[in-house]
Amino acid sequence: MDIDALRNAHPDHWMRATAIRALALDAVAEANSGHSGMPIGMADIATVLWSKHMKFDAANPTWPDRDRFILSNGHGSMLLYALLYLSGDPQITLEEVKNFRQWGARTAGHPENFHADAIETTTGPLGQGISNAVGFAMAEEMLRARFGKKAVDHMTYVFAGDGCLMEGISHEAISLAGRYQLGKMVVFWDNNDITIDGKVSMADRTNQVQRFKAAGWHVQEIDGHDPEAIDAAITAAKKSRKPSMIACKTHIALGHAAQDTAKGHGALTDDEANATAKQGWGWTAGPFDVPAEIKSWWEGVGSRGAADREAWEARMGELSERRRAEFDRVMSGEAPKKLSATIKALKKQVSETQPKVATRKASEMVLEVVNPIMPETVGGSADLTGSNNTLTADLGDFDETNRKGRYVRWGIREHGMAAAMNGMALHGGIRPYGGTFMCFTDYARPAMRLSALMQVPTVYVMTHDSIGLGEDGPTHQPVEHLAISRATPNTLVFRPADAVETAESWEIALRQGSRPSVLSLTRQGLPTVRTEHKTGNLVERGAYVLAEAEGKRQAILLATGSEVSLALAAREALQAEGIGTRVVSMPCWELFAEQDEAYRKRVLPAGPVRVGVEAAVRMGWDRWLLGERGREAKAGFVGMDSFGASAPAGELFEKFGITAENVAAKVKGLL
Amino acid sequence: MDIDALRNAHPDHWMRATAIRALALDAVAEANSGHSGMPIGMADIATVLWSKHMKFDAANPTWPDRDRFILSNGHGSMLLYALLYLSGDPQITLEEVKNFRQWGARTAGHPENFHADAIETTTGPLGQGISNAVGFAMAEEMLRARFGKKAVDHMTYVFAGDGCLMEGISHEAISLAGRYQLGKMVVFWDNNDITIDGKVSMADRTNQVQRFKAAGWHVQEIDGHDPEAIDAAITAAKKSRKPSMIACKTHIALGHAAQDTAKGHGALTDDEANATAKQGWGWTAGPFDVPAEIKSWWEGVGSRGAADREAWEARMGELSERRRAEFDRVMSGEAPKKLSATIKALKKQVSETQPKVATRKASEMVLEVVNPIMPETVGGSADLTGSNNTLTADLGDFDETNRKGRYVRWGIREHGMAAAMNGMALHGGIRPYGGTFMCFTDYARPAMRLSALMQVPTVYVMTHDSIGLGEDGPTHQPVEHLAISRATPNTLVFRPADAVETAESWEIALRQGSRPSVLSLTRQGLPTVRTEHKTGNLVERGAYVLAEAEGKRQAILLATGSEVSLALAAREALQAEGIGTRVVSMPCWELFAEQDEAYRKRVLPAGPVRVGVEAAVRMGWDRWLLGERGREAKAGFVGMDSFGASAPAGELFEKFGITAENVAAKVKGLL
Repeated sequence: MDIDALRNAHPDHWMRATAIRALALDAVAEANSGHSGMPIGMADIATVLWSKHMKFDAANPTWPDRDRFILSNGHGSMLLYALLYLSGDPQITLEEVKNFRQWGARTAGHPENFHADAIETTTGPLGQGISNAVGFAMAEEMLRARFGKKAVDHMTYVFAGDGCLMEGISHEAISLAGRYQLGKMVVFWDNNDITIDGKVSMADRTNQVQRFKAAGWHVQEIDGHDPEAIDAAITAAKKSRKPSMIACKTHIALGHAAQDTAKGHGALTDDEANATAKQGWGWTAGPFDVPAEIKSWWEGVGSRGAADREAWEARMGELSERRRAEFDRVMSGEAPKKLSATIKALKKQVSETQPKVATRKASEMVLEVVNPIMPETVGGSADLTGSNNTLTADLGDFDETNRKGRYVRWGIREHGMAAAMNGMALHGGIRPYGGTFMCFTDYARPAMRLSALMQVPTVYVMTHDSIGLGEDGPTHQPVEHLAISRATPNTLVFRPADAVETAESWEIALRQGSRPSVLSLTRQGLPTVRTEHKTGNLVERGAYVLAEAEGKRQAILLATGSEVSLALAAREALQAEGIGTRVVSMPCWELFAEQDEAYRKRVLPAGPVRVGVEAAVRMGWDRWLLGERGREAKAGFVGMDSFGASAPAGELFEKFGITAENVAAKVKGLL
Repeated sequence: MDIDALRNAHPDHWMRATAIRALALDAVAEANSGHSGMPIGMADIATVLWSKHMKFDAANPTWPDRDRFILSNGHGSMLLYALLYLSGDPQITLEEVKNFRQWGARTAGHPENFHADAIETTTGPLGQGISNAVGFAMAEEMLRARFGKKAVDHMTYVFAGDGCLMEGISHEAISLAGRYQLGKMVVFWDNNDITIDGKVSMADRTNQVQRFKAAGWHVQEIDGHDPEAIDAAITAAKKSRKPSMIACKTHIALGHAAQDTAKGHGALTDDEANATAKQGWGWTAGPFDVPAEIKSWWEGVGSRGAADREAWEARMGELSERRRAEFDRVMSGEAPKKLSATIKALKKQVSETQPKVATRKASEMVLEVVNPIMPETVGGSADLTGSNNTLTADLGDFDETNRKGRYVRWGIREHGMAAAMNGMALHGGIRPYGGTFMCFTDYARPAMRLSALMQVPTVYVMTHDSIGLGEDGPTHQPVEHLAISRATPNTLVFRPADAVETAESWEIALRQGSRPSVLSLTRQGLPTVRTEHKTGNLVERGAYVLAEAEGKRQAILLATGSEVSLALAAREALQAEGIGTRVVSMPCWELFAEQDEAYRKRVLPAGPVRVGVEAAVRMGWDRWLLGERGREAKAGFVGMDSFGASAPAGELFEKFGITAENVAAKVKGLL
């Protein structure tokens, strides 16, 4: 690559872009870890995009109508930190850049959305950012349709590398964006031919241009180091009604000895080679130093958007007070005041009529009353709408002709759905929920973990939550998936026992601001166990005494979901034999763990034998069965210790021994 | 659709194919559950493929050189069962067909490889079959290169639906097959425009033909009900040196009232509509009845391959005895006799030299001695070769010009890698292992679950297994992934403490025949804790006393992997204060759980306080800490209860409190 030619062709641009290069090189060298090559290679694209197109106001990084910038190839995090520092972001200071990858710094190894307001999403696990972007762009379309173009009108820009495009999730994201004609989404593919193992062609020879076209995208191919070509391509992309992919031919670690090599992907820490690179770039400033003229130009870029923001504020001032308040409410994520009364009314009705319904059906009953009062909810399913019971009457399908539609046909794309829902939640203004079978938590897993890490309140409606699924067999029957979700930090896992607990669980999920919820729901009908109406939300405490022992308390049965009614039946049998038995319903372990010790001890006093019942593996149960510090109780468990099987559900519960008789027998064996 | 025209055009073919349709319709109706439409729609393709092209001998379903048939759209399982029953498979009898989806039947809701020899793989979770097929086809290429075309020369045929092609994993599979020019893989896409929610176009408008071409495939488009077109397309596909996709335009539930509708996808159980459909098909036989002439024709199809098999046997007879024995050994999955001595020699050397190495590096040391004596191993990594330490000197890259290569550059495709490894293991003759970061267990998760369910010995080399990964931060630091793998039935999870335990773990993994292994390995260097050479494999017992208490035994420290040396340091401190402390290393919980109670009690006697140490969440630990029935011990845990952070590894262990000091303090707090 002829660096001199590049420098000479656009000298001002070159030095501005090279400020990013130099900062990335310095920060990675200082940390002795990180990824130098990508920021160096994509600096030209970033400089043109941020200076000529991106609508943002560096001083106000959360301004709702800003363009969104998503670094899907998050290992190149120094590119983002350099852009933020240069343009005057109040949180990403020079000190932060110098502390790249150190404890407590905002400048983590990969961008973490919770570390700085301007970081739109956490990236690093490849393919997630481009898939989040689908949700960002959908949210923009939906909110624009709802609040008008004066309130909402912005772009979603994505930087993505070969890794993002090799990951399967990118297929789901790309086909969704194409199907839904997300014209305001623009992806810059860093076509540098290099991955960690070596040349991309070692592992992949996909014709990406043809691939994106097959998915319905507008595609351009440019030299990713030519600022004029970059500018023209962005202008064309913004005009396209299709999502746009700009294939940018770039050189990783441009101008460094490691240029165009796998070594250039990683941390370039050789002082001499780095000094030589800077010399070639014509960069004479010291480490972390940016000449005043260049810094000041970048700060101009950062403040340019203030006028846009002010114009937007003025337009918002023209909205009616009610509309402006509603816009602010949905952007804040706050639930409407009516939610509480709505849920209470449903609970009362259910406690009285005591329907025998599956909790997936109960979930639909909740959504039927909640969706009309919460216009910010957006539902969907990965092609299991009728099974997940996620569609209610008033939503309407979201598509290219109906941007007001609040129901997304995600197709058979659990992973893409989860990642896009994260994007919607991160965008703000939308509260997404989406359904699939509980077993396919597996497919959505990387994005579900990110919901938790990123602290977003995505709601997962996971139905068919045990062998109760029946004939479809072990590939569709979760046994370890409750454990998987419960093992994940910052995740609420609800397994309601009936329609009342389902309503209470939903209410809690809809009030969350910073953690996702997993609703584990049955396929099969369940009796109402909460037959006495209580205005308070009992699920809020995570676990509670559902039925007290009569006489001396000798046993406590702990159960969740479909096994609560079974525990009640076992209690009947035990009480008939004079064995005083309490039943504790435990719809949400995480909330129970947050209660004070006195409450936890009241629900689970030391002494009586404890038997847990859940049609799933025991993993995690011992905490409650044996007591948190041990020595509390003799304990047993009735559940699954293998995969399931294909047969009618009732027969499976019998064959796997998850019956009231076995629970009672287990208690007696421990007494 | 003009059924009469189809019947009249090819009357014999029509009735033979309709035998499949009728059986599928009857079995689903009898079970009152299942999927009628796909078998009805793909019956023509299946009939032509099985009768004119598939090399198989129904009486010998495990004959190594048979063509492989993979039903990726596994919900259409009755198609496969009908084919097997009709062609005379000894295990899929009429009785089994009548017991479709019932307890104990071989004819599960979705095909389960462990239910019948002729079922090549478990499918149902969409996209898995087509991705397994990549592994089947790679295994065929590798074994053909090794043993010659006379021994190995067969096709891999895949039926796939829209669901398979929407799942992200299909992108990984398709691009792998294209990159590696797997010319003997043929995919039949059931292009019926229907999914569960309705028209495919609601959720997906991908141009699949263009998409496959972009990935380097040979593509044809045909009428999937025209037997001549099907035959011609298969003939052309077999000739292509590229993998082939045949886009088959079909009608789901052909000729049924539910034809071309989402209803047709599911269980068609309306007696009247079913009778009308049969009438239209010209099918007059009673339920489950197949006219003798048609059954006998199908049995001819099933026995046709006997001659191929005999010819193959004859050719195999020409191999040298040593070569034939080696072929039989690798197909059986048996490890070579030398393995034991090889591992012992390495252990001895390591115990003596006591290197301080990361367990990922120790894993490489094992592979360096194992790969030369086990030509059946095939390694690989999802673009982290230098980090996973999975490549050894003698392997060579597998590619289109070097089919003898034993190392696969999987690209950034963890899920596709895992599914393809399952395919290799199912094919036989290959023992696959593949690496990525432990945290990306998430991406591979659906296929890892299937390794366990399908009982295949795939080995997952998962490095960077804790916050010890350091600066890359929480997106790359597993905290819940040990729990996830341990929660999965039939999976061995190894977390070795040093190079000796790593060698022992690998030996066990390489001897498995029916369960996968997850090796959880460190990035960071660890001291050798097994400094005294023992010929026996201590990891085989899952947990063992590594250091005994001196004086009265007051505490037991339980630890795995990188935390074992930390537990030893804590023991030093405690012993110095006169607190007798035992250290138990627990490299494999599952194996420990399989030991008899006496051994388990010997290792973990009731009484002394117990403290577990693992840089991961506590989920699952209580079983060992508190005792399996409770009341055994007071217990504590030192580990993680949140996501990690970005900083140098040493600092992270300090900040998160995973230190010898904290372990000792925890013990003293409990005494």
